[in-house]
Order: sequence, then structure tokens, then C-alpha cells
Amino acid sequence: MDQSLFTYDIIAEDPKTHARAGVLHTPHGDIETPIFMPVGTRATVKGVPWETVKGLGAQIVLSNTYHLAMRPGADLIDEMGGLHSFMNWHGPILTDSGGFQIFSHSDAVKLSDKGVRFIATDYDGSHVFWSPEDNMAIAQKLGSDICMQLDQCIGYPAERRDVQRAMDLSSRWAERCYKAHTRPDQALFGIVQGGMHLDLRIKSLERLEEMGDFPGYGIGGYSVGEDHETMFESLEPLAAEYMPKGKPRYLMGVGNPTTLVRGVACGIDMFDCVLPTRTGRMGTAFSSEGRLNFRNARFAHDGGPVDPQCTCPVCTGGYTRAHIRHMVTVKEMLGGILLSMHNIYYLLDLMRRARQAIIDGAYSEFVNDWMNSPAAKDY
Amino acid sequence: MDQSLFTYDIIAEDPKTHARAGVLHTPHGDIETPIFMPVGTRATVKGVPWETVKGLGAQIVLSNTYHLAMRPGADLIDEMGGLHSFMNWHGPILTDSGGFQIFSHSDAVKLSDKGVRFIATDYDGSHVFWSPEDNMAIAQKLGSDICMQLDQCIGYPAERRDVQRAMDLSSRWAERCYKAHTRPDQALFGIVQGGMHLDLRIKSLERLEEMGDFPGYGIGGYSVGEDHETMFESLEPLAAEYMPKGKPRYLMGVGNPTTLVRGVACGIDMFDCVLPTRTGRMGTAFSSEGRLNFRNARFAHDGGPVDPQCTCPVCTGGYTRAHIRHMVTVKEMLGGILLSMHNIYYLLDLMRRARQAIIDGAYSEFVNDWMNSPAAKDY
Ligand SMILES: [Zn+2]
Ligand SMILES: [Zn+2]
Repeated sequence: MDQSLFTYDIIAEDPKTHARAGVLHTPHGDIETPIFMPVGTRATVKGVPWETVKGLGAQIVLSNTYHLAMRPGADLIDEMGGLHSFMNWHGPILTDSGGFQIFSHSDAVKLSDKGVRFIATDYDGSHVFWSPEDNMAIAQKLGSDICMQLDQCIGYPAERRDVQRAMDLSSRWAERCYKAHTRPDQALFGIVQGGMHLDLRIKSLERLEEMGDFPGYGIGGYSVGEDHETMFESLEPLAAEYMPKGKPRYLMGVGNPTTLVRGVACGIDMFDCVLPTRTGRMGTAFSSEGRLNFRNARFAHDGGPVDPQCTCPVCTGGYTRAHIRHMVTVKEMLGGILLSMHNIYYLLDLMRRARQAIIDGAYSEFVNDWMNSPAAKDY
Repeated sequence: MDQSLFTYDIIAEDPKTHARAGVLHTPHGDIETPIFMPVGTRATVKGVPWETVKGLGAQIVLSNTYHLAMRPGADLIDEMGGLHSFMNWHGPILTDSGGFQIFSHSDAVKLSDKGVRFIATDYDGSHVFWSPEDNMAIAQKLGSDICMQLDQCIGYPAERRDVQRAMDLSSRWAERCYKAHTRPDQALFGIVQGGMHLDLRIKSLERLEEMGDFPGYGIGGYSVGEDHETMFESLEPLAAEYMPKGKPRYLMGVGNPTTLVRGVACGIDMFDCVLPTRTGRMGTAFSSEGRLNFRNARFAHDGGPVDPQCTCPVCTGGYTRAHIRHMVTVKEMLGGILLSMHNIYYLLDLMRRARQAIIDGAYSEFVNDWMNSPAAKDY
């Protein structure tokens, strides 16, 4: 099908790494890559109004199909003019397939070629069946700019046999999603699976390339329990040597700052993760000094900003570590909200600076500086 | 003592009601009265950054001495440069005495002329004793622009004998607070007590006027269980006929929109209440149609704003009733935060419009229009 609205222009390639800077065009605006995508799970970034999300520099946000399909339902969102209108974010939106949430939020999951059957334990306990076609129907009702194929994401460690089976199923579902998806103002990304096995990853990718012309590719099944080196062992060659150059590459569910920095060096363009908001709500901040836990008493008398090197609205807006620690310890939600804002900005700004370094042809220095800085010490 | 930094200028008086429009000068800025003061109980308006509070039009905010004294403690706030600096609100601040919270949040309260002894059940269960002098020492460490005397607030219904005893104790404490308070950049307001008995209220006021020159007066002990007519029966003559004209009058803990409208007609200048944020978090909005409960299914498909007549950032910012209902029902905190913002704005805007009506000499028409509008129907 025609997905010509979703062209991807590479504007710079780093000479010493595989990093690239690009622009992904979507119907709701252009996205400068590499990019981090804040997550608005249930049609809201937890506690942060959209105007603020935009002010932090977000260019595209993610929302979760499983949760939206359960509440308020894809039909209602469709009736309200689609997800942009419903959730009041008028820039680009990416929706996942919901597959990952099914495995983590529901019970009695049964997989077959036909699709996935599960019980929505988180919600009303109803029995739900999604075929790949059902899943695409939901995605098209939501009307996000980018949707993802239905896939099976497998944990780590896992038997190669099971990884292969999940990859095979994901391939067959990819084909059915590809055929069922008809909305020209929405891009459908295929997802490369295959666990930590490079050969399975390559096979998965080849099948996606054979079955059609996806405007972009997700890389799923990482950050599922493996350590960083194990991930990069297969991710690095996959992204750097095998994935098609002219298409955006989205490493799904990864939000550790150092992983972003290293991932960009492998040629990854897009990231998403709940880490900045989830850790923020727990009282933790990314910082140039490494992660800071505001439950720590050492911040009680500290009149400085969360991170003296940060230029976010929280750090430049007069909020002190002492005040934020106070709010975190007395469970005042504003503490977690301000840290969420700081953390989102931190990753957005990290990717902005990475992009500039790529454009300057100095990304390998950027990576070296980062890896030798205290910011990387808790990696 | 010298409290000349806190002059109050009356700039207009309504010809047919007792309403007045004024300007209260404080070291952190002027306050245009009548005014509603949003509450930031524990150094934060729940879930709303200060820049947003300011953007809603807040000119002065309230914070709670009991909670601040428990966590993080007055000494720490003093060390961090005082409450303005600590909580990052640089406009005027009013702090209550903490007396009201002691009665509602602690255990084993024992009152005597010496002071109040209580167990901080909400916090670490420690035994605390506050004399009026201790209370003033805390207030002066916090460094709010306006602090309140320590008083005893009694519920309703109550025996006249008990009301009188609480009023007598409050009078004696007022005198000790007045003597102990020395900070010239902080105003100390006396508090008129006396329950629903006008003669006791007048007695309480007379004693305050005899003991010194308070720059303003709180009116405590209303909205403690009585119905509206019972309150206005003594409040109206107290404010309209007995309270000194040239001093601001602050009706404590009252935030119902209709009570604000009627209170202004009696000559009240200042109000505070947690109602806009507390009801907001529960999914309820003030509106030109009366109170709206967003748990109600009728909003599920409603693409309109919270209140079509409202000009707040939420109602004019693209958030729909359907989206807010969704967030309220799935317990996403942004729903309650947006409704808190709307509700705060609603009361601030109501007082702005009331002030203009007073300046225009048309406040009695304003009250009539209000009382005949659907906004007043749930009063
Ligand atoms: Zn910051
Ligand atoms: Zn509004």
C-alpha cells in the first residue's frame, strides 16, 4: 500500500560510528531523529499536561493500544475524531500493537496463528481475542501516525526453539497485518524479533523486507532481562550492517540514557520508554552526576536544582532539591511530576545533543565523553 | 508593633451591598480583593506547578503551618531562606496557625491557657506542645507575608458554653501571639471566633481591637457543619456592621462559589479552601451549569470543554469532557490535575468578575444574576 506520506530523509551520517541524523515526515509533523518518544500510556503522560510535554521538546509521543482498546475503547476514540483529537496531542503519535502489554497485564494468554486470546485482568476480566486483522482495525480506528504490527515478544533467558517460534509467529502476523492495513495516513512498522540470536534477527528482517515495503522497522524483544553487552552483541551488527539504511529504526521500550547514546552509535533512530516517568514518580532523576534518588537525606538541605547542568523548566524554574525531596518524602504528587518532566527533558535533550554531534561529524567523541562522565556511572 | 508594610486601600464600595474592592499591600506584592487564595498545604498545590498556579491568576496562596512544621520543619524552611524560597512561590503567602489541622489531623489534643498539646498521628506519632509563643516562632521562621494567631476552632453544633470557652481561649492566645510577633515584614491577623452567636463574635472582635492594631482579621469557626443560612445569620451583621472598615476580612476555609458571592456582599475580602483541588481530584468541576461529576457516563462521548463558558487554560486548551472523564475513570492523575486547575481558575475568575462588578457599582445585580443562574443550583 501507499505510505508515501512517511518518507525518511537522512541528513547526516557520522564518519566513525553508524549514527545518523534524519527527518521522518508524518501527517502531523516532522520528527528530527534520533529521538526519544515520551509515553502517554492511557492517553496521558502521567501527571503532565500536553502543553508542558510540548514545551519540554517532545516531537512525537507514544500511546498504548492495549490500554486504549480496553478503556475507553477504539470505537469511542474513533467517534471522538481519533486519538490526536481525543487525547489533545496534535503532533505525531506512535501506538504500539498492545502485544507487549497483553503478556504483562493479562492472564491466560493463548497464542495461535489465528491470533491471541487473553483475559483483561487489569480491567474487567473480560475474555478478548485479537487476530492480526482485529489489531489493525483497532490501530486504524485510533489513527496514530505510526502503528506497529502485532508480534510476540519473548523474555530472556529463553530457549532458542521458543525464540524461533515467537519470531516465526511474528513473521506470519506481520504479513497479515501488512495486508490488513490500508490507512494511507498511518505508517505500519514491521517488528524484527529473534531474541539475542543474530541469525534469527536477520531472518526476521529478511522476511519483513520480502513481504512488502514497510516505511520503518521496530526492533522488539530487547531489554527483556538481558544485560547491556548481551543486547549490543546482536543489536549492533543487526542495526549497523543488516537493516535497510533508508528506513527509520525504532528500538522498542529502551530508555536508559547510556543505552540511548550507544544505540544511536549502532544506527538506531527512535526510542521510547516509561523509565523517565516511572522512575520520576518513584523519586529518581537522571542527572549529569548519575541517577539521583530524592529519598536520600543528603538532599534535605540542598538548595541547588535537580541537575545543575540541566536546562529544563524544573531545573531553571527555581525548584530546589530540598523542596523536591520534601515532596517526594511526603508523597506530594508534584515531586514525581517535576522529576518526570526533568527526566523526559533529559532524554529529549540528550538526543538533541546527539543529533548535533552527528551533524558535526563528532559522534564518536560524544559517546566517549558520555561513557567517561559521571552520568554513565550507574549504567 | 509596626505593620505598616500591610496597608489596605479600599478603592470602591458597592452602593447597595456591603461589598468592597481593595488592594492589600504586602512585601511580596499587592493583592486585589476580593480574592480567593488557592491552598498549597504541604508547600505545593497538589499536582500543579507554581508557574501554572500563577498563570491561573493566583495572587496569593495559602500554606499550612501544621503540615510544614511536621515536615520538613520550620527550621529547615528557615535555613533554606524561608517559605517563599523553599516552596518556589515568590508572590504573597498566607499561613494558617495550624490550629485547625491539630484538631482534625492529630490525637489526644489537650488545651490549656499555656497552649495545645497533641500527638502528630499523621506523621511520626510524636508528642508536640505548642504555646502561642511557639506558634509565632514557627510562623516567623516560615516568613509568610501573613500569619494567623493560634486559635481554637469549634465545630457545629456546640453548646454556647463551649463556644464561649473556645472564644475566650482564642482571645487570650491572640494577646500572647500579638506580643510574641515581632517580624515587621509579616502581618499577624487576629481571628474572630464565637460560633453562630453574634454577641460572642462581637465580643471576640472587640477584644482583638482592644489589644492592639491587627493589620487584618480572620473570621474562623464557620463552615464547620452548619447550613448556609445559619452561617450568614451571624456573619452578615458581623462583617457588615461591626468589623472595622479599613482592615481586610478573611473568611477562613470557605470555597463554595455561591458562598463566595454572598460573602463578598457581606463585605468579606479574602477566602481560602481546598475545595477546588479536593473536588477536582475526585473528578468534580465547578461550572456555569452547576457542579459536574466526571464519573457520570453522560460525559463519555462529549467533545466539549469542561465548561463552555470558562476561559481557563484547560477549557480553552483543547481538553474534552470525554478525555477528562476517561482519565478520571481510569484514575490517571492528569484528570484530577486538570480539574483542579479549572476549579482554581473558576474561583479566581469569579472573584475578578465580582471585583469588577463592585467597581462598576453593580454588585447587587451580580449577586442576583448568580443566584438565578444554574451555577448556583447545587448550593
Ligand atoms: Zn532538569
Ligand atoms: Zn475551565
